[in-house]
Amino acid sequence: MAGIVPSRRVRGTPFTEGVQAAGAKAYTVYNHMLLASYFESYEADYRHLKEHVQVWDVAVERQISIKGLDALRLMRQMSPRDMDKMAADQCYYVPICDHNGGMLNDPVAIKVAQDHYWLSLADGDLLQWALGLAVGQGLEVDIEEPDVSPLAVQGPKADDLMARLFGDIVREIKFFRYKRLPFMDTEFIVARSGWSKQGGFEIYVDGSDYGMPLFNRLMELGESLNVRVGCPNLIERIEGGLLSYGSDMRQDNTPIEAGLARFCNSPSEYIGKTVIEAQKKNGPDRMIKAVAIDGAGDLPHNATGWPVYKGDQKVGLIASAAWSPDFKTNVAIGMIDKSAFAAGTRLEVVTQNGTRGATVQEKFWI
Amino acid sequence: MAGIVPSRRVRGTPFTEGVQAAGAKAYTVYNHMLLASYFESYEADYRHLKEHVQVWDVAVERQISIKGLDALRLMRQMSPRDMDKMAADQCYYVPICDHNGGMLNDPVAIKVAQDHYWLSLADGDLLQWALGLAVGQGLEVDIEEPDVSPLAVQGPKADDLMARLFGDIVREIKFFRYKRLPFMDTEFIVARSGWSKQGGFEIYVDGSDYGMPLFNRLMELGESLNVRVGCPNLIERIEGGLLSYGSDMRQDNTPIEAGLARFCNSPSEYIGKTVIEAQKKNGPDRMIKAVAIDGAGDLPHNATGWPVYKGDQKVGLIASAAWSPDFKTNVAIGMIDKSAFAAGTRLEVVTQNGTRGATVQEKFWI
Repeated sequence: MAGIVPSRRVRGTPFTEGVQAAGAKAYTVYNHMLLASYFESYEADYRHLKEHVQVWDVAVERQISIKGLDALRLMRQMSPRDMDKMAADQCYYVPICDHNGGMLNDPVAIKVAQDHYWLSLADGDLLQWALGLAVGQGLEVDIEEPDVSPLAVQGPKADDLMARLFGDIVREIKFFRYKRLPFMDTEFIVARSGWSKQGGFEIYVDGSDYGMPLFNRLMELGESLNVRVGCPNLIERIEGGLLSYGSDMRQDNTPIEAGLARFCNSPSEYIGKTVIEAQKKNGPDRMIKAVAIDGAGDLPHNATGWPVYKGDQKVGLIASAAWSPDFKTNVAIGMIDKSAFAAGTRLEVVTQNGTRGATVQEKFWI
Repeated sequence: MAGIVPSRRVRGTPFTEGVQAAGAKAYTVYNHMLLASYFESYEADYRHLKEHVQVWDVAVERQISIKGLDALRLMRQMSPRDMDKMAADQCYYVPICDHNGGMLNDPVAIKVAQDHYWLSLADGDLLQWALGLAVGQGLEVDIEEPDVSPLAVQGPKADDLMARLFGDIVREIKFFRYKRLPFMDTEFIVARSGWSKQGGFEIYVDGSDYGMPLFNRLMELGESLNVRVGCPNLIERIEGGLLSYGSDMRQDNTPIEAGLARFCNSPSEYIGKTVIEAQKKNGPDRMIKAVAIDGAGDLPHNATGWPVYKGDQKVGLIASAAWSPDFKTNVAIGMIDKSAFAAGTRLEVVTQNGTRGATVQEKFWI
């Protein structure tokens, strides 16, 4: 594919200098910002991520700050998850839906204070949804995009690297919980989270000017741990069933279809509840499934989504697929109709380079 | 810059096949879709656009369809322009603002029917704003992204090319008005509009499957007119003062600051009116200005916005700049503080390759 032209509209991040210096070979655009796609290669990055530790520029996870008297009220409206159960130091993965239960985004919500939340976004201007609801109802709440840029530290040695910077206290941070930890003359929210299954943290860098000092410090301290600059890895995230909003599911999918029923437990009258509760009860007509595609490492790049057939019947779409060196199969994420989503069902996937057999899996690989 | 990795999330358009075959050399991403940045070069594309005719894939101008009993009511809330004056066949350029008058987008609104509007978007998920307002207030209106993809025909020979396809009736279409014209077994809204100052049309291709047949037909019919596949041209649009939302202005700017006061005339209580009316009365503290930057064709690429100084004082930012072969100067668009925005004011612009003198212009070049 041809190159990308950056502009103020498609902008860099506080860490772009470090990402470019590390030799990112390709980019995508996510929330109007550059996000590296790979450095050495998808497979080399993957191997390193699973064995060592990487520093990821995920500033593209733009934050929405929702603050004020009505912050909790608005969060209750937007969240299928029970916001009243959220602890003071907790992060919640929250599928956010329209009035038809259609997903608008799947951010991680962070409870910054009793009347203050951050939403760490997937690709999409969810700020406009929150603001529209607030302005439409005259809610007392300030909604803005703060200068907060997440930097992720991911991989089996993430605890060791983070301990070198912040001390052993990082080891006490539980999954999807956070602590406020000091850096230079400030402090950051540091959560045990991140878009891989290899373990690690996300540092919510509050103030762009701290970006490169933090980035460089982590790279220095990690030298003997074989740290590298990395990015979310296509292969690893498919193996783990980490969904990409906009690819694997969109506004025409509910969280139940996306396999996220366990995050839909709110007793409040949240937006989309009628549809979501009905689907929880009756089951959805289609659902995200792990799919193994036949063949060995010779899949073309999936740039459009591949239609999936069972016999003559179109039964779904595969938006994400890659060869898994560890599981020795082509791993894929598909949105598959009920008629074909039972584990073991044989399917045909139509790629731009021909048709492949495939099998619905019981679950994702890790 | 490194290459871009397309995916279902950063997708192609119904015309991407034609754009790729024509050899687009670089892309940007706009509304989660690929948009070509140039073909031969910015300057060669510019010269051709000003002398001949080009077919542009502007499917990235995603449509929002707003339809139903409360469609006009919602449009009145969202639009600083007087929606009640809009004719049945009219297109309106509409800056859309939040409750602080901050711009959320600057679409072209098309009156499809009495209770039905399309908004042809700049870069940003304005659907979420409209939907938030509608759901928050319980409005009776359907809001969705229809399968409608604009294809632009721009340049001095645009009337001739369009007449070969649709007949001489196209010559009767007035500026920012439309007619419904037949193609194959359907018809399209065809408006005299487009993001250049060279004249031309936008065809609202309703149904992706018609995309390449229309594209190919235009290229065939235009052969003797020296038609080329093109795209919005950086140089030409700066000369003409065509603003890029996200670059030249953002949510922290009002339409008055963006020089769009003439589009803010609604007697309704639209969102942001208090701030906008006050700025109309008292004048804004900063404003979009045409700026000529010293030097001859040796500006670096502006990927971040360049700060602008008057003496020691930071007085603005230039987000768009390019060498103009026709006007023999570096043309630029700046958001400049009141203290420095009088025509003739000398400024200093800090680029990544050093500081340049510059002069505020009375108006844009064309």
